[in-house]
Amino acid sequence: MGYSSGSIDDNDVVEFAQALLKKASVTPADEGVQGILISQLERMGFSVTLLPFGSGEKKTLNFFARLGEHSPHICFAGHTDVVPPGGEGWVHAPFSGVVEKDILYGRGACDMKGGIAAFVCAVEKILKTWDRRKGSISFLITGDEEGTGEFGTKCVLEWMKAQNQIPDFCLVGEPTNPNILGETIKIGRRGSLNARVVIKGVQGHVAYPHRADNPLHKLASLLNFLVTHELDKGNEWFEPSSLQVTSIDTGNDVTNLIPGEVEIRLNIRFNTEHTGQSLKTWLNESIERFIPHYSLEVAISGEAFLTPLGVEVSELQKVILEQTGRNARLDTGGGTSDARFITHYCPVAEFGLVGQTMHKVNEQVQLSDLRGLETIYRLFLQKMLCGAGHETV
Amino acid sequence: MGYSSGSIDDNDVVEFAQALLKKASVTPADEGVQGILISQLERMGFSVTLLPFGSGEKKTLNFFARLGEHSPHICFAGHTDVVPPGGEGWVHAPFSGVVEKDILYGRGACDMKGGIAAFVCAVEKILKTWDRRKGSISFLITGDEEGTGEFGTKCVLEWMKAQNQIPDFCLVGEPTNPNILGETIKIGRRGSLNARVVIKGVQGHVAYPHRADNPLHKLASLLNFLVTHELDKGNEWFEPSSLQVTSIDTGNDVTNLIPGEVEIRLNIRFNTEHTGQSLKTWLNESIERFIPHYSLEVAISGEAFLTPLGVEVSELQKVILEQTGRNARLDTGGGTSDARFITHYCPVAEFGLVGQTMHKVNEQVQLSDLRGLETIYRLFLQKMLCGAGHETV
Ligand SMILES: [Zn+2]
Ligand SMILES: [Zn+2]
Repeated sequence: MGYSSGSIDDNDVVEFAQALLKKASVTPADEGVQGILISQLERMGFSVTLLPFGSGEKKTLNFFARLGEHSPHICFAGHTDVVPPGGEGWVHAPFSGVVEKDILYGRGACDMKGGIAAFVCAVEKILKTWDRRKGSISFLITGDEEGTGEFGTKCVLEWMKAQNQIPDFCLVGEPTNPNILGETIKIGRRGSLNARVVIKGVQGHVAYPHRADNPLHKLASLLNFLVTHELDKGNEWFEPSSLQVTSIDTGNDVTNLIPGEVEIRLNIRFNTEHTGQSLKTWLNESIERFIPHYSLEVAISGEAFLTPLGVEVSELQKVILEQTGRNARLDTGGGTSDARFITHYCPVAEFGLVGQTMHKVNEQVQLSDLRGLETIYRLFLQKMLCGAGHETV
Repeated sequence: MGYSSGSIDDNDVVEFAQALLKKASVTPADEGVQGILISQLERMGFSVTLLPFGSGEKKTLNFFARLGEHSPHICFAGHTDVVPPGGEGWVHAPFSGVVEKDILYGRGACDMKGGIAAFVCAVEKILKTWDRRKGSISFLITGDEEGTGEFGTKCVLEWMKAQNQIPDFCLVGEPTNPNILGETIKIGRRGSLNARVVIKGVQGHVAYPHRADNPLHKLASLLNFLVTHELDKGNEWFEPSSLQVTSIDTGNDVTNLIPGEVEIRLNIRFNTEHTGQSLKTWLNESIERFIPHYSLEVAISGEAFLTPLGVEVSELQKVILEQTGRNARLDTGGGTSDARFITHYCPVAEFGLVGQTMHKVNEQVQLSDLRGLETIYRLFLQKMLCGAGHETV
């Protein structure tokens, strides 16, 4: 691995983020965005392995890049894909990367091309002083986090495992802060489970309800139970688990017909008091109490997890406090992320930009946040890889 | 009006019903079925007025036929249209009118071409002896009772009103007997109301339920109330009113999305304790108690009614007892029929064949029932029009 810091002009994080934002990499499209990263990382001396998985419409570009061979091995995980720009109302075209009044606009600005740019630039800035015998840095970059993720991070991790490239700690660059930079580090995530229940009754004419068995009437008490039942009270690190019924569908257009069945779909976001399997059992037992004939399908999208809390998270908290004056809350709320895959391999935490506008029209990031995050990442890497207290650039 | 009984060979009710069954008059098609009736009635001396209403796809054939000018004026109301033959499994083709082992098969056998044939043949048999100064007989025949009925009986009645042809009593030939001929006379019908409720919430991500307002969760208590609430306990002539939720639809395919609204459709079959309007008010007040934001559309298909009980119904009961040995129950249950329109003009009762197979595969009628009904109709006409006790043919 060549080390060529002397020949690099340090990139400006804003310009680098702009370059990434100009590529319309809506899942699963890449549009050259990973190419920009790869060139830059190779210039910085990283050894890059392209890891495309899937084929045809499911083809997903991913790569792994590493600099250094020693421990501790700190990995940054991120995704270059973005959700579609959505509705009208963008003040600047979603893939133009325009800066106006110290705000950078664009789909992916906070989720999470801005976060990737900040980490790349942070690494670049420590290259001059970093003694590479003291550790190594890697990037796990996927082109499908916003989609199904079928051929993304999960596959890269399997490859990393096989290649003995599992890091000691992984930092995911998702926008974890709801309002202000420095508010929140995610140290776990709730699990997520989708269920589809079909309640069966007996079809019939509304004029003769005693000859039919209305599944919508049977649904009433089950629905009442499901939406009022307390799954748990939460615990030290997690808020209470939450069940949301997302769809009830009958599809009966005939006004004088009692339908024969109804389909209910629901999602449970659950904490570490449950597993997907324990909830599936609970669902079966609960439905059975109200409904004699039903079918239940359950898909577990991710189990709840809490990362082992070690020196990395406490050092991250310290540099956030140093840089922003804020005591970052250790949190496990919100949606799922690829951290749910990474947790099976190594400790993982998430810290990135302010996510207020993620997935919305006029996604944006303040330039001061972008620079602030770069500094936090740099200070964190210095603490981890350059020895405590070594904070000069 | 010519009277030509001397020249008519009396029709056999079975053969006449077969002729009607061979016409595939699935609503709104006629296929010549009314033509058979009209020729026969004209041969019997009836004065027939064709009353087609509607146009294009909605064109509906109807006719009114009357014999005699005096009171009492007894009208027979019936429909020549039938519901589609439906699924497989017919032992004889649905429009072949096959007789096998004293059973006549075919779509419309009991509902209600058999009933029409019985009344026509009953009239034919009294023509020889009936002194036409003692009353008159009419037919109100429509080609759309099974469909929307938009251009059927309702329109014919308006015409009859305008022409001063409203009868003193109307007998509808629907198959009123659930199992055995002579069980049941219908003297009223429940009303029917369809409602569509849209419950509005606030769409959002399942991971942040506090930022959304799940309309399916709000639905739970309303649904529970609607399906358990007792609208009334019934009364002397009516069973309790019944509410059936017929469809709940969300149409949300996104598993992590809390939907923004849900649509509920329901039907109420109600007795004379309510009106469509009183139930609409009750629905509004009930929904309001559970749901702040909703919309409600109500369509009243028919009000509940009870016919004034006069000599006609009691004489009908007598001849049924005479012919079948059964005390016909006066009933108001079951679905709606065109009697709901007729009741606005004159007393109306319904009595016909056994309806067990109506709207089903292998619709059928026993030949003995067909002949029995013809006799009941004949005896009834003789009581009404030929003076009490005059029962010889
Ligand atoms: Zn993201
Ligand atoms: Zn009918």
